[in-house]
Amino acid sequence: MTFSFELLAEDSHSHARAGLIHTPHGDIPTPVFAPVGTQATVKTLTPTDLHEINATLILSNTYHLYLRPGADLIAEFGGLHQFMNWDRPILTDSGGFQVFSLQSLRQITEQGVTFRSHLDGSKHQFTPENVIATQEKLGADIIMAFDECPPPHDYAYNAISLERTHRWAERCKAAQRRADQALYGIVQGGVFPDLRAKSAEFLTTLDFPGYGIGGLSVGESKVQMHAMLEILHPILPRHKPRYLMGVGSPEDLFEGVARGIDQFDCVLPTRIARNGAVFTHNGRINLRNARFATDKNPIEADCQCYTCRHFSLAYLRHLIMAKETLVLRLTTLHNLHFMLDTMRRIRQSILDGTFTDYKNQFLAAYQTVPEESRQRRIYKDK
Amino acid sequence: MTFSFELLAEDSHSHARAGLIHTPHGDIPTPVFAPVGTQATVKTLTPTDLHEINATLILSNTYHLYLRPGADLIAEFGGLHQFMNWDRPILTDSGGFQVFSLQSLRQITEQGVTFRSHLDGSKHQFTPENVIATQEKLGADIIMAFDECPPPHDYAYNAISLERTHRWAERCKAAQRRADQALYGIVQGGVFPDLRAKSAEFLTTLDFPGYGIGGLSVGESKVQMHAMLEILHPILPRHKPRYLMGVGSPEDLFEGVARGIDQFDCVLPTRIARNGAVFTHNGRINLRNARFATDKNPIEADCQCYTCRHFSLAYLRHLIMAKETLVLRLTTLHNLHFMLDTMRRIRQSILDGTFTDYKNQFLAAYQTVPEESRQRRIYKDK
Repeated sequence: MTFSFELLAEDSHSHARAGLIHTPHGDIPTPVFAPVGTQATVKTLTPTDLHEINATLILSNTYHLYLRPGADLIAEFGGLHQFMNWDRPILTDSGGFQVFSLQSLRQITEQGVTFRSHLDGSKHQFTPENVIATQEKLGADIIMAFDECPPPHDYAYNAISLERTHRWAERCKAAQRRADQALYGIVQGGVFPDLRAKSAEFLTTLDFPGYGIGGLSVGESKVQMHAMLEILHPILPRHKPRYLMGVGSPEDLFEGVARGIDQFDCVLPTRIARNGAVFTHNGRINLRNARFATDKNPIEADCQCYTCRHFSLAYLRHLIMAKETLVLRLTTLHNLHFMLDTMRRIRQSILDGTFTDYKNQFLAAYQTVPEESRQRRIYKDK
Repeated sequence: MTFSFELLAEDSHSHARAGLIHTPHGDIPTPVFAPVGTQATVKTLTPTDLHEINATLILSNTYHLYLRPGADLIAEFGGLHQFMNWDRPILTDSGGFQVFSLQSLRQITEQGVTFRSHLDGSKHQFTPENVIATQEKLGADIIMAFDECPPPHDYAYNAISLERTHRWAERCKAAQRRADQALYGIVQGGVFPDLRAKSAEFLTTLDFPGYGIGGLSVGESKVQMHAMLEILHPILPRHKPRYLMGVGSPEDLFEGVARGIDQFDCVLPTRIARNGAVFTHNGRINLRNARFATDKNPIEADCQCYTCRHFSLAYLRHLIMAKETLVLRLTTLHNLHFMLDTMRRIRQSILDGTFTDYKNQFLAAYQTVPEESRQRRIYKDK
C-alpha cells in the first residue's frame, strides 16, 4: 500500500499542520481543499481545467455513481480515474450522507440502509460490505467508511446511531480487499462532546490510515463545529490526516486548519458559482448586480485565474443575463482557484510560521455570509 | 483600409477557390467556416478553446448584441474584440435576417424595419444607416449590408423586396464611416434565376469588398440552392470573397466550395452538439443512443479534437444522461473541430489540385441527413 501521511510542520500558535499525503496517483500537499465532482465530473470543468487551477484531489460521490452509470461499468474502464480521465488522487465518499438525506425514502437496520433512488424510485440497499465493494470498483485513492449521519441535536439518537456506525466501521475494515486504497473511518456524535470523544477514541483503536469528521455541515452552528474540532484534536492520532467532510466556505478553511484539519471538500464554491456568486477577498459578490453592467475590471484585479485574466465584470454579467452557459464555467474556475490558492497560501504560512497572521489578515478583510457552509445537505448537486 | 482578398488557386474541375482574406485582426485562409457566437460567445467555448481548434473567423449577431448588452456598452470597451476577448477576425451580420424572422413582430417600410424585441417586447427600428452605425460600434472586421430576407418562393414579393434591398445596400455604403471594416453587399432574389442574376449584377456595380449570398438557408431545396450558386458564379467578381450565409452542414461545405463559395457560417454544428448529436465521417450519431453506454472508443478514433483525445463514448453518454453541462462543451468542440478540420482539408485539396477527389471520397462515406442545413431560421440560437 502506497498511501502514507507525512507531517511536515505544526504551527506553534494553533493546531494548524502542513503535510503531504502520498497516494498511488501522486502527492497531495495538505491542508487541501477537494473540489466536488459528484457525477464523475467537477461540473463545467475538464481535467485540463482542473490541472490548470492545480487541483490535487477531487471528491466523487459513490451514491450517484452507483446509480448512474453504475460501478460495474466504471470498473470495466479500469476505474474512475480512467473513466473520467483524471490522473490525480480521487476520494469517494461512502454514500451514507446521501442516502440519509433521502429522508422518507430510506430505512435503517443493523444490516444497512434500504433506500429508493432519487432518479427512478428503484429500491436499493447499502451495507458496509457492499459500499466498500462499490468503492473498490470505483478505485479512488481514498475511500470512506459507511456511516450514519444523524440529525446533530438529538442526543439519544446520536448515542444509538454512533454505536451502529462504529460496528459498521469494523465491518467496512473487514470487508476491504484492495490494498491500494486508504479507508478512512468517520467520527460522528453530533454536537455532543462526550459522543465525539468516544467516537474518536474508538475509531483510533481500529487504526485507520485517516479520519473523516462527519455530521458537521448539517445544521449545527459554527461555534458548535469549532467546539467539536477542539475536542477531537488531542484524541485523533497526530500522524494521520483529518478530513472535515462537507466543509466549507473560505473562512471555514482557516478555522478548520487552525483546529488541526488537513482535508476539506464542499460543493459551496461550485454551487454558488452557478448562481453567479463569486468570492473576492472582501467577501462574496453576485455578478447579476446591475452595478457591474459597465465595469471593465475583472472580479479581482490581482487574481491569476483564467476568468480574471481574460474577462471584465461587465462581460461576465452579460453572459449571465444572456443565459450563456459559458459563464458557469468561468465563475466555477474563479471560485475554485480562490479556494485552492487560499489553501496554498495557508499551507505556505504554516511552513513559514505565519499562519495566525495570515488568518487574522484574511478574516479581517473577508465579509462572511452567516453560516454559509451549510450547503452539503442536498443529495443532488444542482 | 487593410482588408483585401488574395486568390491563391482555382480548381480546374469545379469552381472551387483557395485564398486568403487579410483583415485588421489577421488573415483568414479561405474557404472558411465561421462558428457562430450569437451573443458575443460561441456557446460553451472560451477564446482559448477557439484558438485550440484554430478558428480564424467567428460570426456574431448584431440584432442580439444591439438588444443586449447594447452596442454603446460594447463600444465603450473598444468593440467586440475587446469585450469578448477574441483577437482574431469577427464578422457581424446586419440583423436583417433576425428581424425578418420575428414574423408578426415587425413592419417593413422604405425607411427600414420596425420590430419588437423578442426579449421584452420593446419597439425598435433598424434602418440601413443605424445598422451600419451599430456595426461600427461593434467593430467587427467584416460587416454586412442591411437586407430583407424574404420567403424564397414568392416571385412578385421577391422582385419588389429586391429593389428595396438594393436601395438599402446603397444607403449602407453611403452610411459607412469607418475605413477599417469591410462592408459586404448581400445578393437576394429567392429561388429565381433572373432575380439572383439581377441582384449580383447590381451589387457588383457598387464595388463591395465582398458579397454575401442571403436567403439560401430558409426553405429552398438543396437543388435550388446549388442552381442559384451556379448562376451567381460567373457574375460575382472573381477577386472578391463570396459568403454563403447561414450554411451549412458538412456536405454543404463541399457543394458550396465546388460552386465558388469562400465563406460559410452556420449554427448547425454547435446547435446539434447541444442536443447530443456529433459528426463522424460516416454521418451524424446521437450520443444518447444506448449502444454507446459501454463503448470505450472515442467519437472517432483518429480525430485530434480534445474530446476524442480524452473521452470515451460511454463517458460522454454518461454526462448527457446525468445532465452535466460539461458535455455541451465537449460535443461543441468536436463538431467545430470536424467542420474546421474538414475545411482545412478542402483548402489543401484545392491547392493540391485534388479537390474533386476529396469531395467524392468524403461524400461517398458521409451519410447525409436530408436538408440538414435548415437551421438558420430562428432568431434565438438556443
